[in-house]
Amino acid sequence: MLIVQKFGGTSVGDINRIKNVSKKVKLELDKKNKVIVVVSAMSGVTNQLVDYCNQVSNLIKNEALIEYDSIVSTGEQITCGLLALELQSMGYKARSFLGWQVPIKTDEVHSKARIDEIDGEYLLKSLDDYDVVVIAGFQGICEKTKRVSTLGRGGSDTSAVAIAAAVNADLCDIYTDVDGVYTTDPRITDKARRLKKVTYEEMLEMAYSGSKVLQTRSVAMAMAHNVRVRVLSSFGEVNENSGTILVNNNEEIMERRLITGISYSKTDVRITLMKMPDHPGLSATIFGALAQQEVNIDMIVQNISADGKFIDITFTTSKDELERAKHAIDSIKDQVKFAELKIDDNIAKISVIGVGMISHSGVAHTMFKTLADKGINLLLISTSEIKISVLIAKEYGELAVRVLHDAYGLEK
Amino acid sequence: MLIVQKFGGTSVGDINRIKNVSKKVKLELDKKNKVIVVVSAMSGVTNQLVDYCNQVSNLIKNEALIEYDSIVSTGEQITCGLLALELQSMGYKARSFLGWQVPIKTDEVHSKARIDEIDGEYLLKSLDDYDVVVIAGFQGICEKTKRVSTLGRGGSDTSAVAIAAAVNADLCDIYTDVDGVYTTDPRITDKARRLKKVTYEEMLEMAYSGSKVLQTRSVAMAMAHNVRVRVLSSFGEVNENSGTILVNNNEEIMERRLITGISYSKTDVRITLMKMPDHPGLSATIFGALAQQEVNIDMIVQNISADGKFIDITFTTSKDELERAKHAIDSIKDQVKFAELKIDDNIAKISVIGVGMISHSGVAHTMFKTLADKGINLLLISTSEIKISVLIAKEYGELAVRVLHDAYGLEK
Repeated sequence: MLIVQKFGGTSVGDINRIKNVSKKVKLELDKKNKVIVVVSAMSGVTNQLVDYCNQVSNLIKNEALIEYDSIVSTGEQITCGLLALELQSMGYKARSFLGWQVPIKTDEVHSKARIDEIDGEYLLKSLDDYDVVVIAGFQGICEKTKRVSTLGRGGSDTSAVAIAAAVNADLCDIYTDVDGVYTTDPRITDKARRLKKVTYEEMLEMAYSGSKVLQTRSVAMAMAHNVRVRVLSSFGEVNENSGTILVNNNEEIMERRLITGISYSKTDVRITLMKMPDHPGLSATIFGALAQQEVNIDMIVQNISADGKFIDITFTTSKDELERAKHAIDSIKDQVKFAELKIDDNIAKISVIGVGMISHSGVAHTMFKTLADKGINLLLISTSEIKISVLIAKEYGELAVRVLHDAYGLEK
Repeated sequence: MLIVQKFGGTSVGDINRIKNVSKKVKLELDKKNKVIVVVSAMSGVTNQLVDYCNQVSNLIKNEALIEYDSIVSTGEQITCGLLALELQSMGYKARSFLGWQVPIKTDEVHSKARIDEIDGEYLLKSLDDYDVVVIAGFQGICEKTKRVSTLGRGGSDTSAVAIAAAVNADLCDIYTDVDGVYTTDPRITDKARRLKKVTYEEMLEMAYSGSKVLQTRSVAMAMAHNVRVRVLSSFGEVNENSGTILVNNNEEIMERRLITGISYSKTDVRITLMKMPDHPGLSATIFGALAQQEVNIDMIVQNISADGKFIDITFTTSKDELERAKHAIDSIKDQVKFAELKIDDNIAKISVIGVGMISHSGVAHTMFKTLADKGINLLLISTSEIKISVLIAKEYGELAVRVLHDAYGLEK
C-alpha cells in the first residue's frame, strides 16, 4: 500500500511529539507500506510568525503577502526537517521536501494559493531512493515568479490530499488531536458521538460551517479526486475501527441517519451596508469589489425599504478577511453610497448537516422550533441540499448546539 | 554608490530592532545610494533550531546535515521577509531573496558550505525593479541536488562580502552589536581601544583566533576580492569616523603600531592521541581521517618518546567539531593504535596579532616573559608571520589578555 500520513500542529508540537509521530510512521513502514508524510508547523509557531508580520505590515497588498508567505512557510520547513532527522536516527533513509523542491506548483494568490500541479512522478521516484519522504505542508511555489506560496490556514490538509491524489495513494491518514469526526464539538456537549463514516459532501459542509477537523478545500479535493481520507488521533493506538473515514455518497453507510452533525462557528463577522439608493448592478458592484480582494462570502441577505428606494445588504465573511473586506468596501463607497456600515462579530453560526435531509422534510422546522423554544433569534438563514445554517447571537451558540443535538437525537 | 549592508542577530533581535534596521537602510536610500541588505536570524533563533536538531540527531552523516541546513536556514528566511515588509510599509519597493532564489550557489559540504558563485547580474537587475533588496544571509543552494546549504555559524558575514564582491559594491557595511574592532575584547579590559583601520591580514588572524566581530571566511573573501568592509554598530549614529574599516596592507595606516590586537578564544578543545607506535605515514593517517570528516585543525604538536618508539600527537580544534573529530579518530583507531585518547576543553587560546611584528623581533619574547611572570604555563605555541598564539589553562585566560594588553601598550 502507498499511504500518505498527515500530522497537524499539535501532533508535532514539540520534539517528543515528533518522536511519537515517527513511531506512527514506523508502524506503516513495518507493514512494508510505502509512506509519504506531510507535516504542519509546531502548534503556535505559525501564529507567532503571523503576529510578527502583523507588527510590520497591514498585509493588504500582494507585494506584502509574497513576503508573508515566505515567512510563515518556515514553520513547516522546520518540522519536516526534524521528522526526517528523527526517522534517519531510527535507521531509515528519509528525506524532507519543501514546496519548491517537489515542486508543488500553485497559483499566485499569495496567503491563500491553490495547488495547480504536483509532480507525483518525482515523488514516486523519490520513494525508490528513500524509505520515506517527508513533505512540508501548507506551502508551494509560484513557478513563474519563483516565490514561496502558502495555502491558507489549515492548508496542510489540502497539501496531504493533493499529494495523495498526485501519487494515487491508497489511503490518506490525517492525524490530528481528536480521534475522528464527531456529531458536534465534544467540548460543547458530552453527548457528541464519533462518526465511523461520513460522506465527502457532509464533511465538506461541516468543514465549511465551522468544524475544524479538516480544512474545507482538502475535503473538496478529496471528493474531486476520490482520495480515501481517514481522520485519526496521533495520541493512542490505531486499529481498523479507529477514526472516521470519508466515503462516497453511494457507498453503504450502515448507520442510516437524518442528520449527521452540527457545526458551530464563532469566526464569522456580519457586515451590513445600510440604506443604499437602489439601482441595477448594485450587488454586482459590491460583490465584485469583494471578489477582487479575494474575500470569501458566506451568507447574504438583502432588504428593500417599504418605498423600494433604499436597500440594505448584509453578508458574512470570516474575521480573517475583515480587513480586506473593509478595503474593498472603501474602494466603492462613492459608487454605492451607503448611509452606514455596520460590522458585528458578536455572532455564532450553527449548521445542521446530513445527506439524509434531502429526502426528509421537517428538518428545518425542527431546527427553527427548537431554537425559538429557547428564545433564540435567527439573524440570517442559509440552506443547501444537505445543510441549514443560521446566524444567532454569540452568547446562545453553545446552548443552541446542545438543544439541537438533543432534538435530532444525535447521541443515539 | 552601491552599498551592501549586513545586520547581525542582535541587530534584528526583535521587531523593534528590525524597525531600527530599516532606518539605517533609509539613511542610505535617502542619499540616493543603491542598497542590498543581508540579514542574520534573530539572535537566539539559530541556537534554538540547532538545539532541536541535536535532540533528534547526532548530525554526523551528510544525510543529516542536509536536513540540518534546511531547518537552521529558516531563521534568516524570517528576518529577511520581515525587513522587506517593514521597508514596504515605509513606502519602498522592497523584496526579499532566499539563497535558492538569487541563487547563491555553494558546494555540497552541508552545514559549512562554501560559496561557488552568486548571480550578481540578477541582483543588479533586481535593483532596477526594487528600491532595495533584502537577502537571507548564511544560506545558499547546492544546485545539483536542489538542497538548501548553510555556510557555518556567522556565515551571514560571508554572504554579505560575497554579495558585495558579486555586484562590485563600493562598500560593505557590517552592522553588529559593537562599534568596531577593538585591540581586545572590551569586556575583559576597559583599556581596550577601537581601531579605526585594520588590515585584512590582521583581521583574518584576529577572526581566526577568537575575535567574533567578523567571521574568518568573510575576511578572507574580502581580502581576495578587495571588498571595502566597514564594521559598525547598529545602535547609535553613524558618521565618517564610525567603526573600523578593513584596508590593504599597503594602504597608509596612520597609527603605526607593533601589535594591533589581542584575541582570546575559549571555544577550542585539545585532543591528544597518546603513545602510538611510530611508523611512516602516521600523521597522514590521522589528519587524513580528520580532513575527511571536515574537521578544521588549528594547532598541532607532536612529541616523541626518549627511545623514539612512541609518539604523542596533540592538536586543537573547535568544540563544535569535537563529535566529528571523535568519529574520525574512532575510524582509524585500529591503524594508529593509541594507548589513550585525551580530550581537554579547559583551555584558552591567546593570540597577539599585528602586521608590525614582521619587522620587529622581541614580540614573542615579550609575550612569553609577560605570561611567565604571572606563572602562566604555555601548553602549545603556534605562530604565523603576523600572529603568535599560545594555549593556556582556561582560568588564566582573562588575566593573560589584560597583562599582554598592558605589556604591548595597546591602550596607547
